Amino acid sequence: VLGFVTTVVGNVIQEQREKRRLSRFFSPAVVSKLIRSHDADDALSSERRVVTVMFSDIRGFTSMSEHMAPEQVQAFLREYLGTMTRAVFDHGGTVDKYVGDAIVALYNAPYDMPDHAVQAVRTALEFQERLGPLRRRFGQVLGSDIRCGVGIHTGEALVGSLGSELRLEYTAIGDTINLGSRLEGLTKRFDVPIIISEATYREVRGQFRTRALGEVGVRGRAEAVQVYAVLGPADGTSDVEGPPASAPATAGADR
Amino acid sequence: VLGFVTTVVGNVIQEQREKRRLSRFFSPAVVSKLIRSHDADDALSSERRVVTVMFSDIRGFTSMSEHMAPEQVQAFLREYLGTMTRAVFDHGGTVDKYVGDAIVALYNAPYDMPDHAVQAVRTALEFQERLGPLRRRFGQVLGSDIRCGVGIHTGEALVGSLGSELRLEYTAIGDTINLGSRLEGLTKRFDVPIIISEATYREVRGQFRTRALGEVGVRGRAEAVQVYAVLGPADGTSDVEGPPASAPATAGADR
Repeated sequence: VLGFVTTVVGNVIQEQREKRRLSRFFSPAVVSKLIRSHDADDALSSERRVVTVMFSDIRGFTSMSEHMAPEQVQAFLREYLGTMTRAVFDHGGTVDKYVGDAIVALYNAPYDMPDHAVQAVRTALEFQERLGPLRRRFGQVLGSDIRCGVGIHTGEALVGSLGSELRLEYTAIGDTINLGSRLEGLTKRFDVPIIISEATYREVRGQFRTRALGEVGVRGRAEAVQVYAVLGPADGTSDVEGPPASAPATAGADR
Repeated sequence: VLGFVTTVVGNVIQEQREKRRLSRFFSPAVVSKLIRSHDADDALSSERRVVTVMFSDIRGFTSMSEHMAPEQVQAFLREYLGTMTRAVFDHGGTVDKYVGDAIVALYNAPYDMPDHAVQAVRTALEFQERLGPLRRRFGQVLGSDIRCGVGIHTGEALVGSLGSELRLEYTAIGDTINLGSRLEGLTKRFDVPIIISEATYREVRGQFRTRALGEVGVRGRAEAVQVYAVLGPADGTSDVEGPPASAPATAGADR
């Protein structure tokens, strides 16, 4: 009897642990699917696939945080990252990692999602909306003007459980990911909240109001990348494509 | 009896889970200490403290990985990150995170370590040594010349369990961390494997052969930062301080 009990208890706890581990990365729907597949590790083995990657960052958070009490930083991050992670999950995305206040999210992984680029852009718009209540709650501590920059790119990446035996994480690597990060860096220079690449733009065209920002050189890429600002959901009229804004020459961010 | 059994089994599994979670970040010695303290979460609550931060990166790994089979990338990363994580732990360091092939490690956290800067530099030298066998094993796949760049800086940072309720991680944020990352980026431009800041240099002076590289401007910092290459362990003679190498004007990396 004892053996049976420990097995049952062990299994339940094992499953809970698995669920907990997976819920760091995946939306509840994906976690259920992975647990049901009884072979999560196989489902998460590494492969090359097309993904849309979204990088987000709070402008100037590092310098803000230097003037805050550690408990305040902790409380704000918990609230902010929790809120935005729910937004990612609501759109079927996967959270690759946090880097301080930055969030890296993937769409179309681990499972196919035909409208992955659209879902990523919708998430980015929702980030801007969800900042409002946080601004009101934490404005006194943070200063009233917390703003969030988001970069989105679509392309092939190597995705899967990568890391050491101590620490396997569902993550993505490759030029596609690096370019996503660089686009996020560009939001500061163009002073717009959301920038998407040409590749993402092609996938979402007509579904959002956008503005062409012109071509930018990106370190490590021979060809310039055409980038667009996303202004909001489509309002019935077609894309707003004004003249390119005056553009900085080169995206210098290094990751 | 059943209740007692489940409690005992539950406790054992709980402790194992805790150990597993903590061993992602901390060396076995620190994990034992944290488990013994019976209040790991308190020990890991956020605080400002002086740390030495080490960023390491494999030069050109992204482009290498684009030509490798996913299984090869996975196998190499597992071996490389495992090997280097053991080197960090051997010197009492804490692994904050992996970002693809990059490793971020902290010294003097969560527990005091008087010679944290020295241990970080020793780890960096050991990284270079441990690359040898990996180069021989994976040379055919990776090309013969895998090289690793390391940036090290010492200063105050906010350290502790940060993140959302889904995902708390022992990590560090602040200008100190950002500068560490930028120094790692500089190793490419100076073509040296290890670069340390003036602040780290002051802590380790006389213990390693170093070369002053001159001052570099770093985006987001008003004052230029004096940086040094670490050439090897001290060989009895004092620091080698040759004339500054010709230096690029500004460290442009953005994280």
